[in-house]
Formats: sequence, C-alpha cells, structure tokens
Amino acid sequence: MNATATDSNAITGRVFNFSAGPAAMPAPVLKQLQEELLCLPGAGASLMELSHRGQVFTDILHDAEGTIRALYGISDDYAVLFLQGGAALQFSMIPANLIRGNGKTAQYLVTGSWAKKALGEAKKEGNVEVIYDAKDSNYDHVPSPSDYKVREDAAYLYHCSNETIQGVQFGEEPACPAGVPLVCDASSDLLSRPLEINKYGILYACAQKNAGPAGVTVVIIRRDLLDHAPADLAGYMTYKNHADNDSMWNTPPTFAVWALGKVARWLADDIGGLEAMQKINEQKAKRLYDVIDSHREFYLGHAKAEYRSKMNVTFNLPSDELLGKFVKEAAANELASLKGHRSIGGIRASIYNAMPREGVEALASFMTDFASKNG
Amino acid sequence: MNATATDSNAITGRVFNFSAGPAAMPAPVLKQLQEELLCLPGAGASLMELSHRGQVFTDILHDAEGTIRALYGISDDYAVLFLQGGAALQFSMIPANLIRGNGKTAQYLVTGSWAKKALGEAKKEGNVEVIYDAKDSNYDHVPSPSDYKVREDAAYLYHCSNETIQGVQFGEEPACPAGVPLVCDASSDLLSRPLEINKYGILYACAQKNAGPAGVTVVIIRRDLLDHAPADLAGYMTYKNHADNDSMWNTPPTFAVWALGKVARWLADDIGGLEAMQKINEQKAKRLYDVIDSHREFYLGHAKAEYRSKMNVTFNLPSDELLGKFVKEAAANELASLKGHRSIGGIRASIYNAMPREGVEALASFMTDFASKNG
Ligand SMILES: Cc1ncc(COP(=O)(O)O)c(C=O)c1O
Ligand SMILES: Cc1ncc(COP(=O)(O)O)c(C=O)c1O
Ligand SMILES: [Mg+2]
Ligand SMILES: [Mg+2]
Ligand SMILES: [Mg+2]
Ligand SMILES: [Mg+2]
Repeated sequence: MNATATDSNAITGRVFNFSAGPAAMPAPVLKQLQEELLCLPGAGASLMELSHRGQVFTDILHDAEGTIRALYGISDDYAVLFLQGGAALQFSMIPANLIRGNGKTAQYLVTGSWAKKALGEAKKEGNVEVIYDAKDSNYDHVPSPSDYKVREDAAYLYHCSNETIQGVQFGEEPACPAGVPLVCDASSDLLSRPLEINKYGILYACAQKNAGPAGVTVVIIRRDLLDHAPADLAGYMTYKNHADNDSMWNTPPTFAVWALGKVARWLADDIGGLEAMQKINEQKAKRLYDVIDSHREFYLGHAKAEYRSKMNVTFNLPSDELLGKFVKEAAANELASLKGHRSIGGIRASIYNAMPREGVEALASFMTDFASKNG
Repeated sequence: MNATATDSNAITGRVFNFSAGPAAMPAPVLKQLQEELLCLPGAGASLMELSHRGQVFTDILHDAEGTIRALYGISDDYAVLFLQGGAALQFSMIPANLIRGNGKTAQYLVTGSWAKKALGEAKKEGNVEVIYDAKDSNYDHVPSPSDYKVREDAAYLYHCSNETIQGVQFGEEPACPAGVPLVCDASSDLLSRPLEINKYGILYACAQKNAGPAGVTVVIIRRDLLDHAPADLAGYMTYKNHADNDSMWNTPPTFAVWALGKVARWLADDIGGLEAMQKINEQKAKRLYDVIDSHREFYLGHAKAEYRSKMNVTFNLPSDELLGKFVKEAAANELASLKGHRSIGGIRASIYNAMPREGVEALASFMTDFASKNG
C-alpha cells in the first residue's frame, strides 16, 4: 500500500487510478455514498429504492441541477438535463433534434476519435460537412479560427473540447458566427474549468470522467433549441420531453444523479468552485508535462505543446519493451490504469478533477526515476 | 421503528417500502454494495471508478449475464443486453429495429398505461395495429386468446406482461403464431417467476422494480432479430451494436450492472431460483388479496380476480377521506409509498421480489385492523 495513496484517500486498499473513464471519484463523495447507501437519513430506505417522483429524490435532482448551474453560472435560458445512453446517444440526439428532415447543414471540427464518432452518427440524420480534420497530423492539435470557416446558416458547429484518446484540448471555444449554435462534447473536461455557457447552444458530457459514475449524461441546452425536433422523433430522443418534465419524462438513473450531485457539491464546497479547480488542474498537468519536456528523448508527448490536454496526458516511450516495463513497474508502485487507448498506444495518464495532487506527484516521481534508470 | 422492519432488514431506520419503482432492493444486496463501495477487494478502487474494458468489470458484467441466463435457462440463440434509457427507450428501439422502413406491421395488445405508451412510440416508426384494447373496462383484465387474432405476417406481437399501474398480469404468454416474434415488456415482473424464453422474440425490463437500481434495462433478444435494423438507425438504438460488443458498444452503466448482478445472485443463491421466488410471490399476493376479498364492501380491488397482478396489488377505499386516512396511518406504521398512481388513484402495494413476507404480513394486519375500525 502506497503511503501517499493511503494518506490522500484515507481508505485502505486504494491505489492511484489514472483510468480514462469510468475514472477516479473524490474519496469524500464515495464515503458519503457509502454511509447513506442502506438508508438515506429520514427517508426510511436507500436512495436507490425511492420513487423518482417523491420529494426526497426530486429535491436531490434539483439540488444537483442547482449546484451545476451555480458552478458554471448557467442562466435560465438553458435547461440542464440528466439523461441516459451515455455521450454516444448524444452523438445521435443532437443531429436528430437539429437537422433531421429540415434540410439544414451541420458542420463538424474533427480533432480526434470522439469528434469522428459523433460525425459518423450525424451523417445518418442529415446534411453534415467536415470543415476541419486533423487526421493528417495524427490528431495532435486543434485548429485555429483561421483554419476553418463556419457557414452563417449552419444548423450548428460541433466540436469535442477535449479528445480523451489523443489528449488534445481546446484552450478556448472555436470561432463561431453569432446565430450558429455551438455544440460541445465536454465529456472529458466537464466542470474542470470555468466556461461562459452563453457561448454554447448545447454542451454535454457523460459523467464517468469528471463528474461521477457511468450512467448519467449532463446536457446543457439553450431552450430555443428544444423546438426543432421532428414530430416523429423517438420520445426518449426528444430533448423537449426531458426539459418539459425536469428530467423525469421517464425514470432517471437515480443513483447516478445522486452521486453526480455529490461530486458537484464537493467541487463547490471542498474545492471552492471552477476557478480553484482549474488552477489545481493546470498545476497537476504542468507537473507531468514538465517531466516529459525534461526527458525529450525518452518521453515522446503526443499532443503539440500548446494543445495539450489538462485532463489526459498522452505520451510514448522509445520502445514497446520499455512501454511494457513502465506500465508494469508503475502498477507495482500502485499507479494504475496508465496504458493508452488501443487505437494510439503508449501511455495515457488521466488526471481529472478527482485525481489528487499526491497521485500526480507520485507519478511524476516515478517517471523521473524510470527515465533515469532506463534512459 | 417497526419491529418487523428491523428484524427483516436488520438495518436501523428502514421501513417497509411498497414503492412501484424504483423499489425495495434485497437488504443483503445493499449491504454488499455498501461494504465494497469504497474499494472493491483486490481492485484498488471502487467499482464505479474502474474502466468498463478492464477484466474486473467485464467479469462482473459476464457474471450478471450468466446468472440471468441460468435463472431463466436462456439458450445461446438469445443475446442478453444491458442498456440505458429505461423501458421508455425500448418503446422506440423495438419498432425502430423491427418495422422502420420495411412496410411490415406490428400488432399490439393494450392492457394498461404501459402498453399504451409503447404503442404511441411505435406509431412513429411504422405500421401498427391494435388488436385488443381493454380500455372500456378500465384496464381490469388481459385478453383471452379468443379475444384477438394475430396476423401470420406480423412483424411482432407486443404485450406488457404486468401492467404496473392497473395491477393486471398475464398468467401465461398471449397466443402467438409460430413465426411471429412475441415481444414483452416485463419491467415489473422480470425474474419473478420461471418463463420459457424460447417463446419470446424480445423480453425486456427496466431494472428498477424487480432487479436493481434505475439506470439499466435488460433486453433478452433472439439473435435473428438483430439483423432487421435500418442502416441509418442511430448507433445506440441498434441492438446489433450492443450484441456484437457484449453490451460495451459504449460505456455501460457500470454501478447499475454490478447491483443487478448481485440481485440476480441473491435470487439464485439465497432464494433458490425462480420457482422458489414464484411460490413466495404467490403467497405474498394471496395474503393481500385474501384481505381484500374478505372485506368486499370496504376494499375495492381494481383487477378482475383471475388477472390480478402478483406484483402490484391495486384497490380503492369507499371514500377519498378513508383513502387519505389509510395512507397516513399506514405511513405512521412504517408502511411507506402505498399511494396509487395518479392516473387511477386508490392504493397500490407493490410487492416485488425484494419485499419480505414480513412486510406483506404487516400490511395485511394493518388492512384488517383498518377495515374493522373504519368499515
Ligand atoms: C470525449 C468523449 N466523448 C464521448 C465518449 C463516449 O461516452 P459513452 O461511452 O458514455 O457513450 C467518451 C468516452 O467514453 C469521451 O471521452
Ligand atoms: C411496465 C412498465 N413499463 C415501462 C416503464 C417505464 O420505465 P422507465 O421509466 O425506465 O422508462 C415502467 C415503469 O416506470 C413500467 O412499470
Ligand atoms: Mg467514475
Ligand atoms: Mg428545472
Ligand atoms: Mg430499485
Ligand atoms: Mg456475451
């Protein structure tokens, strides 16, 4: 048992978990979930056993929504929805609501695996144009505003703010004409930094990276976009149904919403909000990129420096043999789940909100040590 | 604190919870979830924090699948899927996969609120015919085979085995020509009794009544039905994607699958399988219906006797005043969530698998007592 892991998490048996998602959750949140799992104080039952229409759960859902609204400063022009189906269902829901059957064109910026998957689903629903694709440079950057041109009449401009697999991240929103809704897959950097939600038409994220367990997806949608769905769209896929029923058009994933709400409260109360979180995230990322940059022959970073993700640090080693050795020795040091995604290989250290500084410090020390022994 | 509630659940603060869903879960399952919540033994992290692609979670998913297969005796001709979106997404996925764009007709038996909702979604996807609707008798029964005729070339015959709101249940499968896939919404009686799965094309259920927490839906689908989906159907809605990827086409709701697997194991190991469960469920239901039948002027059962649900016992009282008094005094006796669905009013006692006999006994005694005092 790693001493820092013990200190930081104060839970025996836990290691530092760099999984890309489902990913580490804040230890204080896990402890609260555990304490209240058998019987929610005053409710006479576990939260899992309570009707979603009862006061106890509706309060929990509204509290989760309110906390997210407060963290980002989301105005009432937006609905905040808690849906099922993961980010993948959003790949389809967005074009089904906004371009199916209406002849409009959606434009996509393809910066990595996730934007590409979203594009594939959008093509099934209507007219789609790719206005930037970074594939020739193996998805190591995001475009500058001068690299693409958005139509004034586009149904929306789509991008993925953080490509979880390649480890590239938009530093700020893509340039988007007023009048064109900006759509963002923020699955792997939700709640990691302040954003001006007013710049977005839709911002969505599955929870299982930065915001809780798998099984709930947060969709922040400008209310005027609720009215574009075709009448024959599947009820579950119609945003308006969920917005009109406070995310209770059907049974929401109650446990996952409960956990998500607790993570949001931890961010607000224990961390102190999104600016504080951003500062910590930048420090954590810098610590690892500094190690990479001071061992340039040994650690081969994937992303170009200015587009590096603060969430997923991706790099390779000089040989497959050293890569395997790195993963194995790291695991022996209780640094877990560092293997990169099978599609690009190498190492991926996911350091979302819940990864404590101690975990990053332990990894940085291990990397420095490993390089000096094997470099 | 009710003495029987304490004995049965052995968890302080818990009451008998007759919620229709999300509903009571087996206390031993909740205890296991609690024990392992912070750190799954040997995994170094909470189950919620582990990658769905890692060995630990894939073993859990396969174990949940295997236990359900063993309980029902499901052959390899069927895929068993764990999906998100609730039963409501199935209302759309079934017709989208089986009738969209192919000119075939699906036929529906409408026996209550849930079959009716499913019908509404199916109409958006293709040709649909209602071949029986029990609305004229206020959904107090299910049809006999002589009451309807299924086309030999129907795309499928749809029914809801247990209407959760009205409390009517099919005792056996509807008559269905060989060659027509029988489709069943078993959301509120999944795993409550043995079934011959070979009679079905698709049997599905959201978990939050008989099988676990909200957030996962079990779909048992005959493999030949996987090949009918239109090519442009949304990826998430295409059964074949989930079947080909062992329910990991995208991130499954890992916590909910874990809990569902534990409920299935409790059924297999603690209860002794579906025949044993059925016997207990029949005894529990009989206990309550006997009280209703011995106070015919006072308790007004909704369903006709031979179609009564073993899961949701629905009845009314002679006046709204007595109804309110019943709910209030029951709650004071730690018998919770007995109010019927707003659409039909009255009382609904949901006594799924996880409701212990002691809870039913406590309710039966309360009912007898309440009738003698107020009748
Ligand atoms: C950026 C991004 N988008 C989408 C997804 C897909 O999410 P889900 O598996 O919940 O559909 C992921 C990760 O899995 C992701 O990292
Ligand atoms: C028989 C039946 N079908 C469908 C549903 C809808 O399930 P969900 O809310 O998960 O969509 C329910 C209950 O909510 C139900 O009882
Ligand atoms: Mg997680
Ligand atoms: Mg609201
Ligand atoms: Mg439940
Ligand atoms: Mg399988």
